[in-house]
Amino acid sequence: MYTKLWLDYYTEENGISVSGNALEQSGSIVDNAILELRHCKYLKDLNVILNLSEDSDLGDEGYRITGAGKDYTIEAHKEQGLIYGVFRFIALYRLSADKTVDVREIPASRLRMLNHWDNMDGSIERGYSGNSFFFVNNDIVIDERTRDYARILCSLGYNGVVINNVNVKAEACNLINEKFLGKVNELAKLFASYGVKLFLSLNYAAPVEDRTVNSADPLDPKVISWWEKKFDEVYAKVPELGGFLVKADSEGRPGPFTYGRNQAEGANMLAGAISKHGGIIIWRCFVYNCQQDWRDLKTDRARSAYDYFHNLDGEFADNVILQIKNGPMDFQVREPVTPLFGKMPKTNQMIEFQIAQEYTGQQRHVCYLIPWFKEVLSFETYAKGEKPDGSTVKDVVTGQTFGYKYSGMCAVTNTGNDENWTGHDLAAANLYGFGRLSFNPELTAEEIAEEWIKLTFGDDDLVLSNIRKILMMSWPAYEKYNAPLGIGWMVNPNYHYGPNPDGYEYDRWGTYHKATAKTIGLERNSDGTGYSTLYNEPWASLYEKPETTPEELLLFFHKMPYDYKLKTGETIIQHIYDTHFEGAEDVEVMASLWRELEGRIDTSALERVNARFEHQLSHSKEWRDVINSYFYRKTLIEDEKGRELY
Amino acid sequence: MYTKLWLDYYTEENGISVSGNALEQSGSIVDNAILELRHCKYLKDLNVILNLSEDSDLGDEGYRITGAGKDYTIEAHKEQGLIYGVFRFIALYRLSADKTVDVREIPASRLRMLNHWDNMDGSIERGYSGNSFFFVNNDIVIDERTRDYARILCSLGYNGVVINNVNVKAEACNLINEKFLGKVNELAKLFASYGVKLFLSLNYAAPVEDRTVNSADPLDPKVISWWEKKFDEVYAKVPELGGFLVKADSEGRPGPFTYGRNQAEGANMLAGAISKHGGIIIWRCFVYNCQQDWRDLKTDRARSAYDYFHNLDGEFADNVILQIKNGPMDFQVREPVTPLFGKMPKTNQMIEFQIAQEYTGQQRHVCYLIPWFKEVLSFETYAKGEKPDGSTVKDVVTGQTFGYKYSGMCAVTNTGNDENWTGHDLAAANLYGFGRLSFNPELTAEEIAEEWIKLTFGDDDLVLSNIRKILMMSWPAYEKYNAPLGIGWMVNPNYHYGPNPDGYEYDRWGTYHKATAKTIGLERNSDGTGYSTLYNEPWASLYEKPETTPEELLLFFHKMPYDYKLKTGETIIQHIYDTHFEGAEDVEVMASLWRELEGRIDTSALERVNARFEHQLSHSKEWRDVINSYFYRKTLIEDEKGRELY
Repeated sequence: MYTKLWLDYYTEENGISVSGNALEQSGSIVDNAILELRHCKYLKDLNVILNLSEDSDLGDEGYRITGAGKDYTIEAHKEQGLIYGVFRFIALYRLSADKTVDVREIPASRLRMLNHWDNMDGSIERGYSGNSFFFVNNDIVIDERTRDYARILCSLGYNGVVINNVNVKAEACNLINEKFLGKVNELAKLFASYGVKLFLSLNYAAPVEDRTVNSADPLDPKVISWWEKKFDEVYAKVPELGGFLVKADSEGRPGPFTYGRNQAEGANMLAGAISKHGGIIIWRCFVYNCQQDWRDLKTDRARSAYDYFHNLDGEFADNVILQIKNGPMDFQVREPVTPLFGKMPKTNQMIEFQIAQEYTGQQRHVCYLIPWFKEVLSFETYAKGEKPDGSTVKDVVTGQTFGYKYSGMCAVTNTGNDENWTGHDLAAANLYGFGRLSFNPELTAEEIAEEWIKLTFGDDDLVLSNIRKILMMSWPAYEKYNAPLGIGWMVNPNYHYGPNPDGYEYDRWGTYHKATAKTIGLERNSDGTGYSTLYNEPWASLYEKPETTPEELLLFFHKMPYDYKLKTGETIIQHIYDTHFEGAEDVEVMASLWRELEGRIDTSALERVNARFEHQLSHSKEWRDVINSYFYRKTLIEDEKGRELY
Repeated sequence: MYTKLWLDYYTEENGISVSGNALEQSGSIVDNAILELRHCKYLKDLNVILNLSEDSDLGDEGYRITGAGKDYTIEAHKEQGLIYGVFRFIALYRLSADKTVDVREIPASRLRMLNHWDNMDGSIERGYSGNSFFFVNNDIVIDERTRDYARILCSLGYNGVVINNVNVKAEACNLINEKFLGKVNELAKLFASYGVKLFLSLNYAAPVEDRTVNSADPLDPKVISWWEKKFDEVYAKVPELGGFLVKADSEGRPGPFTYGRNQAEGANMLAGAISKHGGIIIWRCFVYNCQQDWRDLKTDRARSAYDYFHNLDGEFADNVILQIKNGPMDFQVREPVTPLFGKMPKTNQMIEFQIAQEYTGQQRHVCYLIPWFKEVLSFETYAKGEKPDGSTVKDVVTGQTFGYKYSGMCAVTNTGNDENWTGHDLAAANLYGFGRLSFNPELTAEEIAEEWIKLTFGDDDLVLSNIRKILMMSWPAYEKYNAPLGIGWMVNPNYHYGPNPDGYEYDRWGTYHKATAKTIGLERNSDGTGYSTLYNEPWASLYEKPETTPEELLLFFHKMPYDYKLKTGETIIQHIYDTHFEGAEDVEVMASLWRELEGRIDTSALERVNARFEHQLSHSKEWRDVINSYFYRKTLIEDEKGRELY
């Protein structure tokens, strides 16, 4: 069995009255909306009216909810908006003290998606919550849990889900073939009945397997016609399919570069073939040289996405969306914002976050990521000049800045078939939070945390206040005991778990810190790799010099001596020691805040999280001691506070 | 198909005459000996007499070979000696210029064994030559290759082979059960027909699986009787079985410690149960704490085998043999000799080497190990006082020093189902060489190399001289570009391939170098962990101080500043730089020596080795640059010769 997360409210029949014009044209979405209302134990003796209105300002996905006491009206222009409204009504009714609701909400982003890195053998790449619930033994599974997952997504207003790993291998290549299209369609219909479009990841080299084609050259007519036929076949069987996500020319995946074509030529070919079906092509920008020589100081992985894509602005078809990671490296606990945002006015963009905690504790450490995402989204790109003018990352990826046809936000999901869905019970706050944030990026991290805590753990004040504290402390704590000042990558290779200061230092991945006895970091300003110059002003100038670089990113941008004084007056080396001791202490605080909740929340959740904290307590000390010892041995500078270094 | 190594001489029928009294009592061994003679293409128009003589001084395994021209006599006291003699005759006849042979050889070691770390799923732990040829898909395979392998072993005088991994898991637990005993017996008979005894690795916890016993406590009568019955069952089906190899209380394997018993109690229980069948128990001494805290400076893994076993001298049954790795750590390219040798006069000991090149280049780098083994064997233990007195490691493990009932030498094998058996064609020199060395430890590494080269590649002078040079350069070269001065372990964890200076530094395996900006090494003298005091004098005193410690082991024994001057006048840091540049240059030399052989040896062997050298050329530079950069960044001391450091 598995938990129901914030939807833990099933009752056989609550006897409420549901009426309204939506019931007249009942279809699967409306049926599911009504089901949800009728089986929520928190709703009693209510009259709920579901109306499909003429108010087209609400769009396909917006809703208006009004009411008080026993009478409520949920209104939408389309059924999709209606079911989002129903789930939101249930949440608001539960959260509201006086039971008065009056909201009108329209999602800020056109695309609000989760990416599953699930493989068909059931494993999940970077999965920390058990195995896939979509795939078992190279087959698709559709059961009660699938439906509950669709409900979970719908309850947050997610409108898209990519069900298979971007690294499309083995049996997953058959997802677009006869063999699986029937089941894919069943899945697509199930998700569609909750307002969520199904997407697949696609193997760019698929036509190479066809002997009569034997190529994936995007300009080859045989290739184009192969894809046209393939998409005809797929859409004939799966008419509700949203489209495809493509990882091409990335980390060993095939792509247009193989044929001397650029990324736009690659993406447009697919986009052209799919356009008549209304499908979209989501094209990842995670393209970089993953065979770099560590001795090479000139190549800078951080520049890659920019260098490969920036010049192609305006060349992509209008049903292509570039999916761009939040930072230029790869989901580190701290990175600058990718400079591509705000630099491609004529190209659809969406941002890719990762709620799978690959580099942020793998759901064994608590790490509430929404504050980090908020910082990224509020980053000012200065896309319209040196005065902020509707040009934050949020503005760009919600399509406001440049009026993109498609844009939005997606996250690599943190879900699996563990009983609690996310491995760490507190990691569900990221699944919840990212959904809410993509719907309404104006929400604060604290607001989202509060909602999630109340809907998950109930109304107890101490529960609310302690878990909120834990969540809000967790990302800063993790950052403190991790690699310092934005340098990143001091982690065990492959697994990406646990400290390893030189783990990636002599490797081929373009992720170097170059620490010596005196200095650490590599120059990314105009004297160095020029990375800082990729930003609009004033960022380019600010990042140019250590004194004007935000200190949390100091070592990302500059090669610095350990005795450089930060704004606090502290040296870098002392800052490293201090933050690492503090980070581990913060975990002590979080663990004891959690322990205080005994008797106030469900015992099994309590114990699951206790066990995770027990690990985090020792593992954060391991981080602290390894990182500190690494720098101590290198510099032989003692801790000013005389604490033990090894 | 696969190569025949040094036995590549099959001909349908050479027409030689074979006679002698051995033919009267023909059994499988004699039949195999005759087969070998009749099918060797190098033997023509010869008269070979095979005699079983009364000369019991030859023992079970010795032989005398005399003759010249067309007439030769091979004489032995037992059939086992006879077949060794036949293979040796073929080799000597091929090697001899004037075709005169007059040798009398008796193996120096009682046990001359190979240990396979083959798993029943076909994988090989630390296997670098393909998969197992014993096991495929959890079944035993017996085919022509099995027979050829028995011939290979017999040709070198090996007399024992352990066919399964010491980590006995999964299906391998069934090797002592009904399910496989039939096939095990077939295998045992096949090997016995070539004078080689079959052994199995054993899971110490086997009786825990039996619900009526549910224990492996060696003092529990139920456990004892379980093993007695088990061995009765096994020997009823496999009467030729030599016995068992046991890895207990080691790296997560169960053992007597689980029940509060010591290693002797554990081993003796099995030895008692097996004694009536004439079997022996080979008990590995690789027992150490593999959950060490890297912050803990007092625990010293190097002491472990000594600390666990030394006090038990005299307590082991006489059919138990302790199998002790050559060094106290784990098959590094350079280690001191394990201090247990010469310290347990009343306990059978054998030495364990590893020809599987786990830490010595994994058969992608050439590394002829016999010179290293020779150094180990010639190490003076001073077991009988401060004057050498028949007390080298060789004397100890051949049973000379203390008159052990059982003793000998074994090696973890480097074989697999690759076409050339050993991955790297030149790695076959280790398979050959270790066999010859265990039979006759007086042979020099050069003599062995020459034999192997001629028997494998023929008589061409340049072939002989170049390959001999390559082999003799190879271990020193590998050591030069590896971790410096005996410190070891600067290798990628798990895989044990490629440079990673801090790879094991913050880990749980007890393998630390503690390098700082000023010093490297940990003190293992009497002021440190006391490891040096475990040796007899004068070693204990010599190892006590840096000045008297052999320099190739300096950093194993002492914490040293980088500016310490070695006997050459060079500092440690300059020595590191120099040796690493030299090591990579040596590989250039070896590779070009090999390329000179084009047209003189079999093309496929030539190309296989060329491909390996191509990798070794770049990988040795990777070693060079990573190790040098690591120390350069840590010390910021420039190379005196101004070469590039990164």
